[in-house]
Amino acid sequence: MSQAGSSPLYAAIDLGSNSFHMLVVRHIDGSVQTMAKIKRKVRLAAGLDERNSLSMEAMQRGWDCLSLFAERLQDIPKQNIRIVGTATLRTATNVDVFLEKANQILGQPIEVISGEEEAATIYKGVAHTSGGSGRRLVVDIGGASTELIIGEGFEAKALTSLKMGCVTWLEHFFKDRQLNARNFEAAIEGAKQTLMPILEQYTDLGWDVCVGASGTVQALQEIMLVQGMDEVITHSKLKRLQKQAMLADHLEELDIEGLTLERALVFPSGLSILIAIFELLEIDAMTLAGGALREGLVYEMVDELRQNDIRARTICSVQKRYQLDCQYGEQVANLASKLLEQVGNEEWVAEPQGKVLLETTAKLHEIGLTIDFKKGGEHSAYLLQNLDLPGYTRAQKFFIGELARRYREQLTSLPEQHALSGTSGKRVLRLLRLAVLLSHRRNPMLEPKVSLSAEGDKLTLSISAHWLNANPLTAAELEIESNRQTDIGWPLTITIC
Amino acid sequence: MSQAGSSPLYAAIDLGSNSFHMLVVRHIDGSVQTMAKIKRKVRLAAGLDERNSLSMEAMQRGWDCLSLFAERLQDIPKQNIRIVGTATLRTATNVDVFLEKANQILGQPIEVISGEEEAATIYKGVAHTSGGSGRRLVVDIGGASTELIIGEGFEAKALTSLKMGCVTWLEHFFKDRQLNARNFEAAIEGAKQTLMPILEQYTDLGWDVCVGASGTVQALQEIMLVQGMDEVITHSKLKRLQKQAMLADHLEELDIEGLTLERALVFPSGLSILIAIFELLEIDAMTLAGGALREGLVYEMVDELRQNDIRARTICSVQKRYQLDCQYGEQVANLASKLLEQVGNEEWVAEPQGKVLLETTAKLHEIGLTIDFKKGGEHSAYLLQNLDLPGYTRAQKFFIGELARRYREQLTSLPEQHALSGTSGKRVLRLLRLAVLLSHRRNPMLEPKVSLSAEGDKLTLSISAHWLNANPLTAAELEIESNRQTDIGWPLTITIC
Repeated sequence: MSQAGSSPLYAAIDLGSNSFHMLVVRHIDGSVQTMAKIKRKVRLAAGLDERNSLSMEAMQRGWDCLSLFAERLQDIPKQNIRIVGTATLRTATNVDVFLEKANQILGQPIEVISGEEEAATIYKGVAHTSGGSGRRLVVDIGGASTELIIGEGFEAKALTSLKMGCVTWLEHFFKDRQLNARNFEAAIEGAKQTLMPILEQYTDLGWDVCVGASGTVQALQEIMLVQGMDEVITHSKLKRLQKQAMLADHLEELDIEGLTLERALVFPSGLSILIAIFELLEIDAMTLAGGALREGLVYEMVDELRQNDIRARTICSVQKRYQLDCQYGEQVANLASKLLEQVGNEEWVAEPQGKVLLETTAKLHEIGLTIDFKKGGEHSAYLLQNLDLPGYTRAQKFFIGELARRYREQLTSLPEQHALSGTSGKRVLRLLRLAVLLSHRRNPMLEPKVSLSAEGDKLTLSISAHWLNANPLTAAELEIESNRQTDIGWPLTITIC
Repeated sequence: MSQAGSSPLYAAIDLGSNSFHMLVVRHIDGSVQTMAKIKRKVRLAAGLDERNSLSMEAMQRGWDCLSLFAERLQDIPKQNIRIVGTATLRTATNVDVFLEKANQILGQPIEVISGEEEAATIYKGVAHTSGGSGRRLVVDIGGASTELIIGEGFEAKALTSLKMGCVTWLEHFFKDRQLNARNFEAAIEGAKQTLMPILEQYTDLGWDVCVGASGTVQALQEIMLVQGMDEVITHSKLKRLQKQAMLADHLEELDIEGLTLERALVFPSGLSILIAIFELLEIDAMTLAGGALREGLVYEMVDELRQNDIRARTICSVQKRYQLDCQYGEQVANLASKLLEQVGNEEWVAEPQGKVLLETTAKLHEIGLTIDFKKGGEHSAYLLQNLDLPGYTRAQKFFIGELARRYREQLTSLPEQHALSGTSGKRVLRLLRLAVLLSHRRNPMLEPKVSLSAEGDKLTLSISAHWLNANPLTAAELEIESNRQTDIGWPLTITIC
């Protein structure tokens, strides 16, 4: 499984309360590439009786699943494997019985990790796959536990694992399978009670952004996208989904556009916990994390991937894997930033993310040429929108791809996107195209001196006559570009000085 | 323009009789990646008077174009640039006047190459971009000359450059711009006269496959694809297109679906020459070459790309660039071939190409995983169908992509394709899926001993009970695969021995 001894495989297995998951990845040039994902709904938690003893049937389901996983584990170096058990195995009084046979099947010990360790690992998984700076609150709703973490960069400042999860809350509050207001209210209230002890500590610490991990948040995201909403989870969207859920009387009749059958059973209970968290901690907005527990386990093993700026790591890895011309990418990014500065940065592009996304696209826009020159922009869009880019959200990937699709030649307006406002999106595209065009010589020393000024959407680019005479191809292209931007309703004047 | 000093740029410029072309490429891991293509319709040939003297206006058009090219040339190492002039510059009596200023503009000498050297370079361009073995006849119809070459591998056995081209034939035979039978017949007859002197030599040498280069053949290919034909050019298709052309009275009214305005003027004359070649040399079928003169110039400079098996070079380059697991690819290809052998090779898949395409896909099917695990098959199809794969035709790339799209998970039937018969295509897909499934352990030592037998479309796979017991995940998947193939109407029985 290796090319010249490099690119080793790693595996992370998570024995959750609802499902067992196995993730196999390959480490390549500063990124991890998923090679296999196997999931089995073992429903271990359902096998706990009132004395927290795990039934033989549940154990057998677990062992059967592990036999399947074991087949794939045998070809992976032992030091590249981590197998962890979480809430249900923490709780089961007869866990030793389960573990003895399980360890034998796997040929590798299972670590039953504490709630705090689980929270710490989840945080690492999030930190390794999320971009941006500032303090973050991470929420992970599992089957039998919910983790809440506050951290900055790779450092967690508060780690909590609470004994509530979408499976246990289903059994407590939706036992009659009724989707009425009473059940929802009780579930939300119960979650708030559970959260109460950490409220003060977490509110005092505070956070800048909130990130959600786990199946519940992922399912929500998918529903929102299918229903045409943007990717940001807000309290009002959660309440809207609660109303949609209550249109069904029974859980069995639940029919929400975008909700898979697989998630349906634990959806109302997970939703209730999330609403409680939003209300009690007064969360404005939450986005989906790129990873959690399993990713944390993997990244802990591949230590060299630890780097504070996740986006820089992602860009660097993509440049390496696709053998992009890094110096040129840097040049276009620098020129684009300089142009943005000349028109007044946040006066012209209100969101600070605008600059980040402009620079990212500048560094990666040529990726499509590695597929083919013809339709290079199309190929760039395909790659950037489909690659796993830790540090960028789905909406940002979409936007970056749409920018790259249009980096040269014909200019068409951007489709609806949720990364920036429509005005900012358009403006970022205009700057990208100018930066690409003016970097054609692929050497910062040979760039023209330019000054760009803006009056609203009117741009004026001033450029030296001397340089234009020495670069007639670029001069001709600049004239075409001026017409293209102007024709689409974004006036661009070239003045010669 | 380089990453850590590697990946140098190369440029090839071709001063043709109709257009000037510039091609800039980057050499990366055994392949050349196009970075820029610039083309200007200079119409140099139109500037020759009856004494073969080039007019000042035509020269000026040429110089203007070269000034544009010069801007891009200055950042490329001089030893990585080749600039050649062809038929019109060979013919012009005052060529020195043109060259003196042209060399000055470019800062680099233009070589006016002989017809034979042009033919030799075209052949190299074809040899470097075409797959398969055997003797090939190469036809390149230019503006003022037509090259015909017979060769094997990289060795040309006959090289001819004839003074007929789509621009000169337009002026001779379609001067009145009438698209009637008389003009066509005269043009075809004229071409046959011109071809006559080489007929015996070429017929004696003979060839196995025929490949066409240049704009005329490319335009034909595009028309055929737009009109829903397959990619193979035959005499009857050419005659059909001649009839379509004759529906218009005048060249200006020519309206053939798929024909671009740019090519329209020289289309009837180019078509006439091609019909003459087909009829006189009794050609059955012609496919489009992946490259010609400019590619020949580039590949001559990048000498290390010279390798006799172009397809092997392509596969190796893709594996390297995408960091695929080569050993695993080799394993799947070997197993797939073994399975094909067990069911009787050409008895089961009639076309010998079937084995080649099966092995190619086996070696490259995981390429989509480099984009993302989810929808890995879709991504594989996208890459394989859009990548430049020297040695594979468009139809073959399409087929390989459709196979790779279906290498795992759900099975759907293949769309219409022109690489193999429908039956063979389906059978190759079945073998690929089995080979992938049985190579899961990614180590040939751990493969099961299997034997596959076929009765028509009924397959029976015999596999050891011991191995299945030791590999329960693959055992489960094999059962699912048996159902999937059987459900789609391709019966697959697993027997345990």
